[in-house]
Amino acid sequence: MRYTGRLDLALICAENPAGCVASGVFTRNAFCAAPVELCRERLEKRRAKAILANAGIANACTGEDGKIRASEMARIASEALGCPAASVLVSSTGVIGTQVDLDPVVRSMPRLVKALRPHGWQDAARAIMTTDTVEKMASARLDLGGRSFTIGGIAKGSGMIAPDMATLLVFVCTDAAVSPEVLDHWTRIGADKSFNCITVDGDTSTNDSLIVLAGGAAGNPPITDIDGPESRAFGEVLASVLRDLSIQVVMDAEGATKLIEIAVSGAADRESARQVAFTVANSPLVKTAFFGQDANWGRIVAAAGRSHVRLIPERVSLFFEDLCVFKGGTPVLGEETERKASEIFKHKEIRVRLDLGLGDASFTAYTCDLSFDYVKINASYRS
Amino acid sequence: MRYTGRLDLALICAENPAGCVASGVFTRNAFCAAPVELCRERLEKRRAKAILANAGIANACTGEDGKIRASEMARIASEALGCPAASVLVSSTGVIGTQVDLDPVVRSMPRLVKALRPHGWQDAARAIMTTDTVEKMASARLDLGGRSFTIGGIAKGSGMIAPDMATLLVFVCTDAAVSPEVLDHWTRIGADKSFNCITVDGDTSTNDSLIVLAGGAAGNPPITDIDGPESRAFGEVLASVLRDLSIQVVMDAEGATKLIEIAVSGAADRESARQVAFTVANSPLVKTAFFGQDANWGRIVAAAGRSHVRLIPERVSLFFEDLCVFKGGTPVLGEETERKASEIFKHKEIRVRLDLGLGDASFTAYTCDLSFDYVKINASYRS
Repeated sequence: MRYTGRLDLALICAENPAGCVASGVFTRNAFCAAPVELCRERLEKRRAKAILANAGIANACTGEDGKIRASEMARIASEALGCPAASVLVSSTGVIGTQVDLDPVVRSMPRLVKALRPHGWQDAARAIMTTDTVEKMASARLDLGGRSFTIGGIAKGSGMIAPDMATLLVFVCTDAAVSPEVLDHWTRIGADKSFNCITVDGDTSTNDSLIVLAGGAAGNPPITDIDGPESRAFGEVLASVLRDLSIQVVMDAEGATKLIEIAVSGAADRESARQVAFTVANSPLVKTAFFGQDANWGRIVAAAGRSHVRLIPERVSLFFEDLCVFKGGTPVLGEETERKASEIFKHKEIRVRLDLGLGDASFTAYTCDLSFDYVKINASYRS
Repeated sequence: MRYTGRLDLALICAENPAGCVASGVFTRNAFCAAPVELCRERLEKRRAKAILANAGIANACTGEDGKIRASEMARIASEALGCPAASVLVSSTGVIGTQVDLDPVVRSMPRLVKALRPHGWQDAARAIMTTDTVEKMASARLDLGGRSFTIGGIAKGSGMIAPDMATLLVFVCTDAAVSPEVLDHWTRIGADKSFNCITVDGDTSTNDSLIVLAGGAAGNPPITDIDGPESRAFGEVLASVLRDLSIQVVMDAEGATKLIEIAVSGAADRESARQVAFTVANSPLVKTAFFGQDANWGRIVAAAGRSHVRLIPERVSLFFEDLCVFKGGTPVLGEETERKASEIFKHKEIRVRLDLGLGDASFTAYTCDLSFDYVKINASYRS
């Protein structure tokens, strides 16, 4: 499609002739890509047989022609698979404003269909990468009423990442039989607990898509009661797979050298905790301090202070791991504190805890540092 | 105070024994610095005689001790100047969480007072710099009813810059006689038209202060009618000086190689135009593309799309200078457009115009690119 010497087109297909129960959450960006519109429309019926995904070209801001090309991609795949065109979903990622070329899709389709196999996940994970440096995969098993289910997924994403509904390209499949309502419910909640808690650069993509397919090959009586124990167990495992994938995305963020957890507690409500956490997590000054291994807590406090959340400075405490560096409106001074903080800042994974002292609500965001390589990668992405 | 081999303490003092009519706008950061609190309190009376400003230590997040030290700085200056302590304002900029050392203030005060002179602005502008590479000064003359007035100001600021009321340290003086109400009115409007339109990194400082002193040495009958022609003329010239200083700040932004104007028009209202403009102006992906001289318009459109402002993609147009690159939801394709866009991206100053096609409101934000040097400067600021 765009890259040479590597895979950049992936086909995911259910063995089940009738296809899967399917759910998805998508970007809230006003300029959503053509394949996102296609998926939103087709998922209204909550069923899908296959997903065709390409890397390198986003098919976003491409007008009517882009829409036609997205739907042509689905048609080409459906003909090769012998299923209705409407049962094929399409996902794209890459440069905005360029049209996808259909020739390579036509040319590659026979090989793609022939190569379909149960253990092809790693190839698919690799084929959807853009600036990612590693493929991202996660899976979990779940035993329920004597039956065993699997939930497995792949993700791509490393820049233009900020939570707003769902993020990036994420495809998750399970052999569990679940009703469309149950799948929808846990897909939304799972996205909220995972991809909606991460940021790399605060930039929400035009192409963010999380699609979950449930084929029912496990043969269980379909899970239909949202509040039942089976549904809850399914939801928890799905969320854990999504969470695993989302953390992998932050760890492979463009130029990132560190994974930073920003845990805000003691907030008046969850929304204000979220707002403080993301203001800190997206602050260029906070992120460069982490890159420089400089325990510059003042920047974290200053970022929290500009979040438009009402704060009482005297009640705020700030911890690096378990080390308190700021309390009661003043720094916890001393060479010992500074030495310990510097030590913590050398770690690859750092937990920042900011307690607002105002209530019981909390929110944890995951972010990374801002390095020379982020600038390097993004100053020359198109060329 | 902190730096060696350069000035880092500035004293600004009115010749007028009674001092000046004074107004100020300050950061909205919840963790505002001790000197900001001091200024806010003292400016309730709308009068001031002098400003003592230091660079290197922000005196923010420093608790009760910090407040005492800010007020001690004012007292030390007032004793040397022979004026009431309450008539001296204090401003600080630099590292958060460190206490200012009063010894150098005491030691330097006789020299500072002795060096007071009408043409010392450049030294003062230099003494308040932190990561700034050039001093920032602006002045304008104004002829009104046969009299001539001067408005002159200095500013510092280069990182942790985002608009929220006022930004950075800015001190402006005029010999015009104006009433406190008139000065307040035009100070607020001037800040809104200048410093509230710029961003470097979206991080609002704990120490942002804009202080305007009007000494009345021109001997005019005080301007007291806010809506009168003299007041309006004064307000316009004050705004132009502030605007000049604010653009100088963006041009000297940490690591910046380009000045970018983001002019959003055709918005339903000013607030939504502002929101779109700043979302684009703060986007790391947009800013790195400018650094890389890559006319990647897709990132600008994507940033606008995530601004939470309701947009109709088909109505949006995007221009680089006068070159239309996106219209009616699709790119204006062609090698010629690409070549011209690339040429524009080599300029040091670039105007981006985004028309939303929804109404008559507009807002223009000024920003800069995000370079290796921004990361370098901020990965090692404290050390």
